Amino acid sequence: MRSRKRTAVAALAALALLVTGAQASGIIEPAGQAYLDARAPVDRRVDDLLRRMTLEEKVGQMTQIRLGKLRGNCEWNPGPLREDCMKAVLEDAKVGSILSGGGDAPNPNTPRAWAEMTNAIQKYAMDHSRLPIPLIYGADGVHGHSNVLSATMFPHQIGLGATWNPELQQRLGESTGRAMRATGVFWNFAPVSDIARDTRWGRYYETYSEDPVLAGALAAANVRGQQSDPTDGTAKLTATAKHFAGYSEPFNGHDRAPAQLPIRYLQDTVLPAFQPQFDAGVGTVMINSGAVNGVPAHASKYLLTTQLRERMGFRGVAITDWEDIRFLVDRYHVAADYQEAIAMAVNAGVDMAMEPSNAAEFTSGLLASVRSGAVSGKRIDQAVRRILKLKFELGLFEKPYVDPEKADAIVNGADRALARQAAAESAVLLRNEGGVLPLSSSVGKLVVTGDTADSAARQLGGWTVGWQGVPEWSPMPPTVTVLQGIKAAAPSANVVSAPTQAEAVAQAGDADAVVVVLGEDPGAEGEADTEEPALTAAQQGLVDAVRATGKPVVVVLLTGRPQVLGTVADAPALVAGWLPGTEGGAAIADVLFGAVNPSGKLPVSWPKSVGDQPFSYDQVRGANAAPGSGYDPAFAFGHGLSYTTFTTSTPTLKSAEVGRDDKVKVSVKVANTGSRDGTLVVPVYVHQPVSKVLTPQQRLVAFTRVELKAGEERTVDVTFDVKRLAVTAGDMDGGGKPEVAKGAYEVVVGDGKARFTVR
Amino acid sequence: MRSRKRTAVAALAALALLVTGAQASGIIEPAGQAYLDARAPVDRRVDDLLRRMTLEEKVGQMTQIRLGKLRGNCEWNPGPLREDCMKAVLEDAKVGSILSGGGDAPNPNTPRAWAEMTNAIQKYAMDHSRLPIPLIYGADGVHGHSNVLSATMFPHQIGLGATWNPELQQRLGESTGRAMRATGVFWNFAPVSDIARDTRWGRYYETYSEDPVLAGALAAANVRGQQSDPTDGTAKLTATAKHFAGYSEPFNGHDRAPAQLPIRYLQDTVLPAFQPQFDAGVGTVMINSGAVNGVPAHASKYLLTTQLRERMGFRGVAITDWEDIRFLVDRYHVAADYQEAIAMAVNAGVDMAMEPSNAAEFTSGLLASVRSGAVSGKRIDQAVRRILKLKFELGLFEKPYVDPEKADAIVNGADRALARQAAAESAVLLRNEGGVLPLSSSVGKLVVTGDTADSAARQLGGWTVGWQGVPEWSPMPPTVTVLQGIKAAAPSANVVSAPTQAEAVAQAGDADAVVVVLGEDPGAEGEADTEEPALTAAQQGLVDAVRATGKPVVVVLLTGRPQVLGTVADAPALVAGWLPGTEGGAAIADVLFGAVNPSGKLPVSWPKSVGDQPFSYDQVRGANAAPGSGYDPAFAFGHGLSYTTFTTSTPTLKSAEVGRDDKVKVSVKVANTGSRDGTLVVPVYVHQPVSKVLTPQQRLVAFTRVELKAGEERTVDVTFDVKRLAVTAGDMDGGGKPEVAKGAYEVVVGDGKARFTVR
Repeated sequence: MRSRKRTAVAALAALALLVTGAQASGIIEPAGQAYLDARAPVDRRVDDLLRRMTLEEKVGQMTQIRLGKLRGNCEWNPGPLREDCMKAVLEDAKVGSILSGGGDAPNPNTPRAWAEMTNAIQKYAMDHSRLPIPLIYGADGVHGHSNVLSATMFPHQIGLGATWNPELQQRLGESTGRAMRATGVFWNFAPVSDIARDTRWGRYYETYSEDPVLAGALAAANVRGQQSDPTDGTAKLTATAKHFAGYSEPFNGHDRAPAQLPIRYLQDTVLPAFQPQFDAGVGTVMINSGAVNGVPAHASKYLLTTQLRERMGFRGVAITDWEDIRFLVDRYHVAADYQEAIAMAVNAGVDMAMEPSNAAEFTSGLLASVRSGAVSGKRIDQAVRRILKLKFELGLFEKPYVDPEKADAIVNGADRALARQAAAESAVLLRNEGGVLPLSSSVGKLVVTGDTADSAARQLGGWTVGWQGVPEWSPMPPTVTVLQGIKAAAPSANVVSAPTQAEAVAQAGDADAVVVVLGEDPGAEGEADTEEPALTAAQQGLVDAVRATGKPVVVVLLTGRPQVLGTVADAPALVAGWLPGTEGGAAIADVLFGAVNPSGKLPVSWPKSVGDQPFSYDQVRGANAAPGSGYDPAFAFGHGLSYTTFTTSTPTLKSAEVGRDDKVKVSVKVANTGSRDGTLVVPVYVHQPVSKVLTPQQRLVAFTRVELKAGEERTVDVTFDVKRLAVTAGDMDGGGKPEVAKGAYEVVVGDGKARFTVR
Repeated sequence: MRSRKRTAVAALAALALLVTGAQASGIIEPAGQAYLDARAPVDRRVDDLLRRMTLEEKVGQMTQIRLGKLRGNCEWNPGPLREDCMKAVLEDAKVGSILSGGGDAPNPNTPRAWAEMTNAIQKYAMDHSRLPIPLIYGADGVHGHSNVLSATMFPHQIGLGATWNPELQQRLGESTGRAMRATGVFWNFAPVSDIARDTRWGRYYETYSEDPVLAGALAAANVRGQQSDPTDGTAKLTATAKHFAGYSEPFNGHDRAPAQLPIRYLQDTVLPAFQPQFDAGVGTVMINSGAVNGVPAHASKYLLTTQLRERMGFRGVAITDWEDIRFLVDRYHVAADYQEAIAMAVNAGVDMAMEPSNAAEFTSGLLASVRSGAVSGKRIDQAVRRILKLKFELGLFEKPYVDPEKADAIVNGADRALARQAAAESAVLLRNEGGVLPLSSSVGKLVVTGDTADSAARQLGGWTVGWQGVPEWSPMPPTVTVLQGIKAAAPSANVVSAPTQAEAVAQAGDADAVVVVLGEDPGAEGEADTEEPALTAAQQGLVDAVRATGKPVVVVLLTGRPQVLGTVADAPALVAGWLPGTEGGAAIADVLFGAVNPSGKLPVSWPKSVGDQPFSYDQVRGANAAPGSGYDPAFAFGHGLSYTTFTTSTPTLKSAEVGRDDKVKVSVKVANTGSRDGTLVVPVYVHQPVSKVLTPQQRLVAFTRVELKAGEERTVDVTFDVKRLAVTAGDMDGGGKPEVAKGAYEVVVGDGKARFTVR
């Protein structure tokens, strides 16, 4: 097949004519190709197409190759697309999907250039395939369409977790999807719904929360937004639930190190963060690169089939992470060679291999496995059916191309107001002693200092244009830094930038206040791991020095994880701004000057010590047996101050007795008792006084967000499903299905609680 | 029964006459009590006695109460034994065992007073029980008979782990057993065979090693020593395997916090450290106070019955740790009330409750559980049978008392030469650049400084007289500090003690060398937890300051865990002396001056960073995926220098193909290529090139210790059982039995390896 010469067919629209190639090869297509009929049911189209495909075409569909292989030297180097490179991947290996890794962008890195590039690749594939099956192009749009220089970068997920605002995530998802589709990217490898419990881990900032209910709700809303129906004429986009599962808890905090997760914990705490996305119809799942309990996720039929398919009901495409099938040989040594690894992964449940280094090596290895019987043809058909179904459902057969003319207008600087809102809602006012904040916009002199006061690169973080953050070869994306934001917010003030500690101290003498903005270097994955997730001595020293001047000091932390604060812990005003993106500086200024009343609440526990690993509010009972071993954070999960004050009543329940399939409606009277309008997050926890297996002292089951005018009082209802209370029963080797135990429970909201019984 | 008045019978020897009390109560004993016949088989004696016992007597046997309840105010206060306190516990509740917690000693705290006290309690029990069943008295003799002021305190286990010397452990066990028996204590709650992988944990120093093979071999040798046949006329003593199982890996490093241990890890890494003790016939097991995978060990039938009894074959008595049944209610909330907790624990496999707070509350709760059917009479009989069997086997029925006249002579200052040898073999020469060590005993001026240079309390550590170390109310046990040891070793030298940093620096000016001895405060259990297991800034500063003088500096670390070294990491000479006990200072001096050529090898990995948690050399493959996440210790497991040099040949095997039930004999030629006699530890590791579940890059399977004269060369054989290669197969939810996989393996010794195949 590889040497057979094909007829190039150029016409973009006349896809049906592309069967010519197949006819030339001697395979006679039946009349009336049902799969090309957009009005036919998807399942029928899939059946029809699958029936026409050769085994080689099928395994090609199961392969996703990086852009670099289509250009430059057919390896890593950037450069224009090259015909010979594309032939090897698209025509010879019949690859069905292409991706851009972080930094894998056209030159210039403009929306239009992206659209032209993805169109050209699509066109080559369509022109050089026997059956016209469109490619699907993927990329990591993890905070906006973040590979594109001119795209608006939203806050990273850890900040969005602090908003507790699913509706906002949906709008952000819509915006990201719109931008990506405009450039021909119909597969976004986002969001992350791994729960984060170890601040040493380099991908902490990519997560929403330590809590599966919060992470799951925000991820599902984001998926709904990303996968919403296009209004601009393109095909749809698929989001990705990742990384399935247990990725975020490497045993030693190092990215991709194996995890030790008892099945009870996996089922009751890790997997629930994924379920809402499956329920929301997320199209794809990316598999955890790590190993869990001694088995690489990519080799685990238990994880990828029993759990993912049979128990959790996921129906889409499961894709590997980067090169992960090869790692079964090279890293984990569970397979003797690559072909064995391929069979192992595909049999476990892998539908598509992302960047298996060499397309032909993967496809030939998989073909050999099928021929030897190591992989069944049925399993191949199952995988390809899922892939084809996705492509049909997205509409790629009808709309494989995008309009480059529209791309710049859609992407460039889009939704900056939304970005600003998101960043402002992300900000968590950790401490505000003596009412240092909000600052008056008529302030006289304001000193702005700290390593991240004017650093777009730090504010944007990793996965921005490049993988480890904005690379040296790229211009800096348009960004409002905190210094710029403050200047804009207080145009009449004397805002002095003091890049060094000495300058800051000197300038503080006659200043009204000092704002210290501290951050961390951008990074991603293992390179962003740290064994000491703490503010540096220099950062602490700067804050100590300006505080010693006696002036009001506001510390703004722009970090992707809660850093252990050291001497900064008792700074009078402390704002966690996370990695707030393009409009971060404007949003931080909004909060500092009170244009926005902060409403962010910690989506994670802020540890006091670097030894607090792993750390989460929902550690099971018994964790507090020894002195100092209880939950004793610097700032607790859910903490976040406001410029107004709120009260929350004792919760009431409609019924004190519920069935296992019921929903529980919790009513709480909330009031804004201060003098500013504000937004209150109301988390609803459940406590189980006695449980046969250890349960947390409290676990989140639902939450809501209420905007309240100054003085306003209102009753809000929050509903949760009794199923949320399920835990895996049994002894310490237990791995049965989670069940809701009968008996007494308590709903806890603030200091109040209400008892109920599950009958 | 509780109100029935008994006849006091005084005669010590005429035990058979004690049935008078029973006869007075109306229960007629059959003629010829077989259980009192020392010549009868133990099982027959047990059967006979069990048949005679009332249910109340049975549950009394299942109860162990602390000394404090028998004296003072019948609660905590010390003081003389009181008749009314003893009546409540021994006569009314019929308690079968008494223990001394740390610090629970007679006054004066002499061996003789111990013997008199245990005799008096035994006599009360014998005099006031219907059937004369002797008590068994227990205590924690964790480094020698360490509750007794004048006993010789051996190094703590972490130091003994560094000896890699099972024969020495056996002798230490014999010594400890002899001392305890002389004082009427026939149950020693030692050794610990938990494996230590988290230096934050407060009980790290109580363990032998991070490796189950090393820990298991040393623990079993210690058990054999402790349980050896007495030559001094007493009954035998039972050791305790503890803490079964999974205790040493609390999820956050805090003592007794729950552990997350996948069953594969539990089976392949945690439990194997216990098996050698079971095979050696250890009489009792103490249960892990913590929870594993959401189930408290004390409530886990899987752990206490399926694993402990059915798979591992343990036949002795399983006792709780301190108050742990109550904690099922108060701490873990898995039982609604105490009675439910009692039933839960006993049904899981608890045979005896240690200090269930109140004897009558426990026994009445257990009686009620039997009467309600929550606990079967059969289960009670099973537990009591084990307890009686232990008492019979130890010979307590024949020898319930000890001779107080002999106690002081046996205990006081016993085996100090052995203690010195053990401490010297424990010392690990971590670094010796430029041949700073050994020091010449003809050195002119030597400055000795550091917070532990002259601190007996720190050198002895926790569990010395008191629980958290030597308490304020106690005199300090006789101890040779490092300062004293150095003075004795170099009598002609000008040894200057410099307690402060300033003095040390000032004195260093004209000194030949400076010895800095650093340690940590004594402590035990949760109180000894730390979130920053590192040398303090002051300790690092002291070393920095004396190094800045340019004089040769030797740093001696007397700590119970490998402290992260900071700036001390590159000190030219570095000795880990652990917590070396009574003769620690003499032993350290032996090593510093070369009287002993150091042979200690690290039994644990020495972390570089406080973020290296958990940490062990045998982390499974895949742990090194990300930069810096591989095994990158400050000093590796097995590291330890000598004053001579050794070579080790490539290992050879008798056969390159073995069966699953075979033993593998590994031959290695070793040579002392230096000019001093020395001892070489030869660890034998196995590497499995491909394994279906992740295995470590290397795992220890056997080791030996070879004394080699200068210039001597010898071939040594080390044998290991192929069963050691077993791992738990299956997917990530796997919990089947460990199996030896067929296929290729490598034996690794030093830099050499030899391949073999399991067929």
